[in-house]
Amino acid sequence: MPGASLDFFYEFGSPYSYLSAMRIAALAERAGVQVRWRPFLLGPIFRAQGYEDSPFNTMPLKRAHMWSDLDRLVRIAGLPAVTRPEPFPANGLLAARVAVWLDDASRPAFSRAIYVAEFVEGRDIGARETVRQVLAGLGHFCDDILAEAEAPANKEKLRGETEAAQRLGLFGAPSFVTRDGELFWGNDRLDMALDHARAIG
Amino acid sequence: MPGASLDFFYEFGSPYSYLSAMRIAALAERAGVQVRWRPFLLGPIFRAQGYEDSPFNTMPLKRAHMWSDLDRLVRIAGLPAVTRPEPFPANGLLAARVAVWLDDASRPAFSRAIYVAEFVEGRDIGARETVRQVLAGLGHFCDDILAEAEAPANKEKLRGETEAAQRLGLFGAPSFVTRDGELFWGNDRLDMALDHARAIG
Repeated sequence: MPGASLDFFYEFGSPYSYLSAMRIAALAERAGVQVRWRPFLLGPIFRAQGYEDSPFNTMPLKRAHMWSDLDRLVRIAGLPAVTRPEPFPANGLLAARVAVWLDDASRPAFSRAIYVAEFVEGRDIGARETVRQVLAGLGHFCDDILAEAEAPANKEKLRGETEAAQRLGLFGAPSFVTRDGELFWGNDRLDMALDHARAIG
Repeated sequence: MPGASLDFFYEFGSPYSYLSAMRIAALAERAGVQVRWRPFLLGPIFRAQGYEDSPFNTMPLKRAHMWSDLDRLVRIAGLPAVTRPEPFPANGLLAARVAVWLDDASRPAFSRAIYVAEFVEGRDIGARETVRQVLAGLGHFCDDILAEAEAPANKEKLRGETEAAQRLGLFGAPSFVTRDGELFWGNDRLDMALDHARAIG
């Protein structure tokens, strides 16, 4: 019998997804909930709703608040100070392709390492070389992985994940979905999502 | 010497402002922070950023999540079940004019009563009769107040509050601003804003 579980949908360009990626493992372990890490792309979902860009780009005041909010949240969470990546939001396509290609055991460490490169070191994760270095740093054979991540079947796999996110009603990242289809949007809802996942078992 | 204080900016059409309005008094008392209740209008602030409507109207998926999120949050907070008001968002102009006209001692109770009419009873707070009944229920002389709330000087007062909100960088509601100008957006940041208000004293 499977225990409690939670689907964690994240986008590599999303600052609040970074926070959840750094927090979720310890919280889920304590709650006794198994997490499925599901990278997806927010771009197609925004476009399907008629938005061409991130709200952080179209609303400068919202962006300004997001960065100071993030500064406060990492202090509280005991995470390193944030470096604001340029360009923002980063193009997370290659990283997402690699993440869906990796197996369930390797995906969390790779995803966290990409987020650290992006939001702590301020590197451009849209650059192929950054993704290569992150993979190499984790001991992967990076050239093989990049080739396989960009093969048609794997591109299709990521498209499928983004479509799955869309079918579940996702409109932002991070989002958490429990087995009964309840959707929890935002890093601020991680604890509530874990509570619900545990309650329905 | 004045103690710690926090400015609470709220909009009567905003569901998350309702939550903060119901929660803030007890939390602020426990934190030893004095709250200034500052109603304002979000419409002019949205329009100044090029948005004609609430994101809850332009993004149906975001609206759907907001209502289920609100249902979950009121359960956790021990508040009554939410009734979704029609039209949404409500026109809070008259309620806001009355709220800025009232003195600091009467404004919180009136504001909470408006929110209860709107989000618990599902009444249209844009209707003059609803505002009248809420005022009457609190023992105010409602005809006098409505006349004074709609006098030019008081309309100007509300405009001034909305402009003050704009100068502080507000882009949504509820928002909290501490004496040092730190901005905290959203009901989810109420505790953090109170902590900061107390820390800077």
